[in-house]
Amino acid sequence: MNWKKLRTAVLLIVSTMVLASCGFGSSSSSKSSKYTTTGDANSGTYEGVIKNGKYQVSKSRGVNVAQNDNTFNLKSFESGLLNVSKKVFSTKSYIFQEGQYLNTDTIENWLGRKSKSNKTGLNPVKGKTNGKRNPIYVQQIEEQDYMKQSGDNLKLHGITIGIGLNSVDYYRKTTNGPQYKQKISDADLRAYGEEAAQKILKRMRQKKGLENVPIVIALYKQASNDSLVGGTFFEYSSNKGTQLSSWKQMNVKNAVYPKASDATTSNSDGQTDNNTFDNFKSQVQSFFPNLSGVTAQAQYQDGDLSGMHITVTTQFYSETEITSFTQYISQAAAKYLPSGIPIDIKIQSSQEMQAFVYRDSGQSKFSSHVFDSY
Amino acid sequence: MNWKKLRTAVLLIVSTMVLASCGFGSSSSSKSSKYTTTGDANSGTYEGVIKNGKYQVSKSRGVNVAQNDNTFNLKSFESGLLNVSKKVFSTKSYIFQEGQYLNTDTIENWLGRKSKSNKTGLNPVKGKTNGKRNPIYVQQIEEQDYMKQSGDNLKLHGITIGIGLNSVDYYRKTTNGPQYKQKISDADLRAYGEEAAQKILKRMRQKKGLENVPIVIALYKQASNDSLVGGTFFEYSSNKGTQLSSWKQMNVKNAVYPKASDATTSNSDGQTDNNTFDNFKSQVQSFFPNLSGVTAQAQYQDGDLSGMHITVTTQFYSETEITSFTQYISQAAAKYLPSGIPIDIKIQSSQEMQAFVYRDSGQSKFSSHVFDSY
Repeated sequence: MNWKKLRTAVLLIVSTMVLASCGFGSSSSSKSSKYTTTGDANSGTYEGVIKNGKYQVSKSRGVNVAQNDNTFNLKSFESGLLNVSKKVFSTKSYIFQEGQYLNTDTIENWLGRKSKSNKTGLNPVKGKTNGKRNPIYVQQIEEQDYMKQSGDNLKLHGITIGIGLNSVDYYRKTTNGPQYKQKISDADLRAYGEEAAQKILKRMRQKKGLENVPIVIALYKQASNDSLVGGTFFEYSSNKGTQLSSWKQMNVKNAVYPKASDATTSNSDGQTDNNTFDNFKSQVQSFFPNLSGVTAQAQYQDGDLSGMHITVTTQFYSETEITSFTQYISQAAAKYLPSGIPIDIKIQSSQEMQAFVYRDSGQSKFSSHVFDSY
Repeated sequence: MNWKKLRTAVLLIVSTMVLASCGFGSSSSSKSSKYTTTGDANSGTYEGVIKNGKYQVSKSRGVNVAQNDNTFNLKSFESGLLNVSKKVFSTKSYIFQEGQYLNTDTIENWLGRKSKSNKTGLNPVKGKTNGKRNPIYVQQIEEQDYMKQSGDNLKLHGITIGIGLNSVDYYRKTTNGPQYKQKISDADLRAYGEEAAQKILKRMRQKKGLENVPIVIALYKQASNDSLVGGTFFEYSSNKGTQLSSWKQMNVKNAVYPKASDATTSNSDGQTDNNTFDNFKSQVQSFFPNLSGVTAQAQYQDGDLSGMHITVTTQFYSETEITSFTQYISQAAAKYLPSGIPIDIKIQSSQEMQAFVYRDSGQSKFSSHVFDSY
């Protein structure tokens, strides 16, 4: 949209002038805050907020890093929450800002168990209910803010809150003791998550400036710690008041290919896609003399394959081998992998990524790049 | 070219039929060899040879890996040799094949010192000349073959030989003793390289099938082991007979930015580009709260900056930070870095590459990709 580009351009010039007058690395001392944005590198992604030349980081920065033993849960939680937000706040009209209303202390308290010293804890008291240990249900919480231009400033027009709910709770009875795990059923984590969502909504409505802003709350089921793919969001609620409105269901599933040979083999369970992937894998492995590891993360939305992240690991003996292998994989990907969905393929040695083949959303051909060196 | 695409398509179909009839991973037992190519992923790169569905690796595969303590010398030697080849063998008419005429034993013997047991050694006897130790001059040798379609087969139409010559020879007096180094002047390594080139040319002319094929020989000056960028080719000779024809000079220089503060500061020495890069670096570092390491390899051809490989390393706390940082870098790169040359920027955490911004040769805009995960 033209007004948006113009605005970005104007803000950029203003920002550059501020930067130029202040010198690099210093924060602006001007009275009114100067905003600009990161620019949208790709369509379908949000621009991010830059304040006085610096990226505006989250007020609870880093909390979720510590909350996730499986880093796949960290990445998929944040990317998934962006995708939920896109259903409500269009990337064309809204600008993304890292959460500014819930700070580290607040989130850490909320993630704790409820106790005398932590009345806001969203997790149950440790004590047993019906003879069973109460697990930790709420594992991570993320706030994302959605802004619109308002005169010289940006104004909050929406918030999205993600709640990550354990499907398995890992715990120790003593500090250095063995690790135990407690499974949580889908029904239980959903019920507990919906209760927590209602509490969070009420608490946020009490904060200054959040009385009337649209607040989306989305529930995410954490993958287990040994999973090779992260969890998924399964429902969200878009709210204008203090009482939660109805939940909208999301049908997102993740899979890892190739499947273990003892996995279920019904077509509905991605067996066709697994076979397709196996074909691609066999082609790649027969092409190159060193055995290549070929694995994929796949995502399904409403039952349809919506994208893949593929990793090919092998040993290379020369730069020309990397180049030829990359060309071959581009060709094999176009021939053997499903069309019409975004796919990226990392080509790496044991040390580091050597090349990269990808087809982004909306592109019909694969592009590639070899990481060369002078 | 249409005939080339058609040929590739036909060869592909044939190859697929062969593969399908033989099963994956087995080599073809048909009487005549079946060739296909890797397809050219990008214009300006060679297609590579696939024989019976498998990549045709070098007959001296892996030798140069062992010959280079500094892996920058490995990558830049092979990429540089491809660039020399492109001056003589057009990527539009020739197909690349890994060297098939010089095998591991031959290359290893040639790289040794001349002795009674190794009469083909290209390096001098260890004994002293004029009271000085004779260094190892020839550090690595690479053969590249250039093919053209001929009926059902591919026929050799050219060979390129790269000779890597030490600017510093590292050695030990005893197996586990301390490492010493002996510098070699540009004049000495050139003179020695030209002599070695003449010997290699004569030897190759004696091989069956190489009596008349064009043979290009190119000389490369190895970077020192502590260099953060590889060496460069400085001359090449294109030969039809047994006597070396004249040498064509190449003016290629590599640089690393930011320069050490005590480096020379004349403009001719890339000081302007260093300042430009420093501007970019300051912008990136002031934008993000965690200090980012920002370094670059740059290459100059005939005095003009011809490309850059930039690496940005920082600590990220969330996927959204990676996305915003990548958007910002795309914007800053377009604004602060030189236009009209290929540039790639790796964005990485201490663990792995997180995103990637690049502008390939001939492109006017930067593209980017964030390595996401489900």
